[in-house]
Amino acid sequence: MSRSDDDRHWMAQALEQARQARIICPPNPAVGCVLVLPDGSSVAAHTQATGSAHAEVAALQALAASGRSAHGATAYVTLEPCSHFGRTPPCADALVRAGVRRVVVAVRDPNPLVAGRGIERLRAAGIQVDEGLMADEAREVNLGFFSRMLRQRPWVRMKVAASLDGRTALDNGVSQWITSPAARADGHAWRARAGAVLTGIGTVLEDDPRLDVREVQTPRQPLRVIVDSRLQTPPTARILPPPGQVLVYAARPDEAAAQALRAAGAEVQYLPNPHGKVDLPAMLADLAARGINELHVEAGHKLNGSFVREGLVDEFLVYLAPRLIGPGRGMLELAPLAALDRSVALEFVDVQRVGPDLRVIARPPGRDRF
Amino acid sequence: MSRSDDDRHWMAQALEQARQARIICPPNPAVGCVLVLPDGSSVAAHTQATGSAHAEVAALQALAASGRSAHGATAYVTLEPCSHFGRTPPCADALVRAGVRRVVVAVRDPNPLVAGRGIERLRAAGIQVDEGLMADEAREVNLGFFSRMLRQRPWVRMKVAASLDGRTALDNGVSQWITSPAARADGHAWRARAGAVLTGIGTVLEDDPRLDVREVQTPRQPLRVIVDSRLQTPPTARILPPPGQVLVYAARPDEAAAQALRAAGAEVQYLPNPHGKVDLPAMLADLAARGINELHVEAGHKLNGSFVREGLVDEFLVYLAPRLIGPGRGMLELAPLAALDRSVALEFVDVQRVGPDLRVIARPPGRDRF
Repeated sequence: MSRSDDDRHWMAQALEQARQARIICPPNPAVGCVLVLPDGSSVAAHTQATGSAHAEVAALQALAASGRSAHGATAYVTLEPCSHFGRTPPCADALVRAGVRRVVVAVRDPNPLVAGRGIERLRAAGIQVDEGLMADEAREVNLGFFSRMLRQRPWVRMKVAASLDGRTALDNGVSQWITSPAARADGHAWRARAGAVLTGIGTVLEDDPRLDVREVQTPRQPLRVIVDSRLQTPPTARILPPPGQVLVYAARPDEAAAQALRAAGAEVQYLPNPHGKVDLPAMLADLAARGINELHVEAGHKLNGSFVREGLVDEFLVYLAPRLIGPGRGMLELAPLAALDRSVALEFVDVQRVGPDLRVIARPPGRDRF
Repeated sequence: MSRSDDDRHWMAQALEQARQARIICPPNPAVGCVLVLPDGSSVAAHTQATGSAHAEVAALQALAASGRSAHGATAYVTLEPCSHFGRTPPCADALVRAGVRRVVVAVRDPNPLVAGRGIERLRAAGIQVDEGLMADEAREVNLGFFSRMLRQRPWVRMKVAASLDGRTALDNGVSQWITSPAARADGHAWRARAGAVLTGIGTVLEDDPRLDVREVQTPRQPLRVIVDSRLQTPPTARILPPPGQVLVYAARPDEAAAQALRAAGAEVQYLPNPHGKVDLPAMLADLAARGINELHVEAGHKLNGSFVREGLVDEFLVYLAPRLIGPGRGMLELAPLAALDRSVALEFVDVQRVGPDLRVIARPPGRDRF
């Protein structure tokens, strides 16, 4: 293999490590690191749970545990090593101390506390740093983190389960279950990697969902968020008890209802817009400030319509079941269009079979370029 | 390669030939034939246009043209060689006369005029015949022909172009163009292999389509069919002039309107059901009697709903564009369902990207087992 093939091989392995970290590491970015020693042997690791080791330190620890030294090694990291003291000391310093000779960085850290300083620190210590290898893939792994750092809002992923003819429920509201157990388990894996899972009061009242992660193993439950302008969530709703925290965004103060929800374990936050509804853009800013990288929306057609109308959806995660329903509820409530070019333009990013169903990922064109 | 690997290799090549014949051969089945000579050389051919050579004869002719003999050869044929005099003499006899030693047949001919007699004829002449290799694939190539022979009706394929949220038109009826030029060209390739392309009077009045094959090369234009209970097709409709024939199915006699349509080149056929609409099952039987193997339906949501309600659709060919429309017309008009298990159950058979769009082929489970 040429040097560059070699580099791609190891970086691909580091990216695979990073992907494995997605469920455990929020709000930190998911990072992978592979250390390749002068004798050709290697060790790979990824970011651990918040407050524990970052990928580089985890890899150095694994190396030390096997009695080997990183002296003269090349480190492949999917994100620039950090240069600041956060919950853990700077990874750049750890690489310097370990005697690493060269660091290959896929993409710079968008965190304004890092943003090139990690690379500078390595270079100042005489380490060769090569940047930009498989940068698109590396950015994709942490789109939510990039979104929070660069746009101050989470990457908003809207999950929809529908029939092939686009129906999410019968006319009478029945929606359980349009898609298969396999699709529902896949949906839980997407919930698990999100910082927060959001729904609307309509869904709470109609389906009384728990909205936690059940169908896949996870060490962490995402924050659960309800958009509930008039604080109609019943204190007995199945979404309120642990595991995990629940945050209710409201628009009209109702202290009695708020108290009842707080007593049931929820946090209530007022964020009204001028129309008496929850201010969705302000809500996204608030969620970003709380460290939410990916926001997973599982709502009904009305709240879906509001998100789409306000241009807030970054990605659609659509499960299509092989069935036809005819009349029923659509994916989203919008005003009728006068012309086709007013429709919401998307691009298909990924299409997979999931059990008997189809999983389609679509984004507004260029939406991931921030 | 083992003998059986060898056989699969040649039969796969014969199937590829058969697929190439689909556009030219209706109402004949599309058949491929590969002759493998004792010296290991081979020649491949497929059914020619109606009245010209069948696959076996085309292959023997190609061999003769290159000065070689079929003596001692093995013939791989995707459908049992015919044993009767139709528009051409029996292929079984041609293989016997040519001195072929062994014939590998993928599947028996469902034509009651053949149905095993071709194989008997070969065996009676001392030829070794092996049956059933890649039978499912071979049946799939000629599903329409099998349907016409075994069910006395065409294989009914319903084509739908919709947005990701299942809309086929805006509320105001605008539907041009939801999908891309690539999807439209692909749709014309499916029209081209059909014996007939069908639409309803609603589409004729609203979109005035030509419904011929334009975007792909074809030596043959399918019959165009209009379901028009009250004979409302205007004699100036763009669907009426050549190329190809037009057949209008009506329910309520209106001789003045019928005369005008006949003058414009169409044939008018009355097939009323007790509700004053066109009797769709009777229409399918009539189309089968006219030699239609595959019927390609491109209609609006009302006629689509009628076909689905009557259980007449064998396959859905759905193009999904990466856009969201919100309110608009659905794929098909049905009565509201009381429960999800009353929805039309399908299976995804094939999913492909076509340009920016998605092409999904779905069938009712077991529908292709007749």
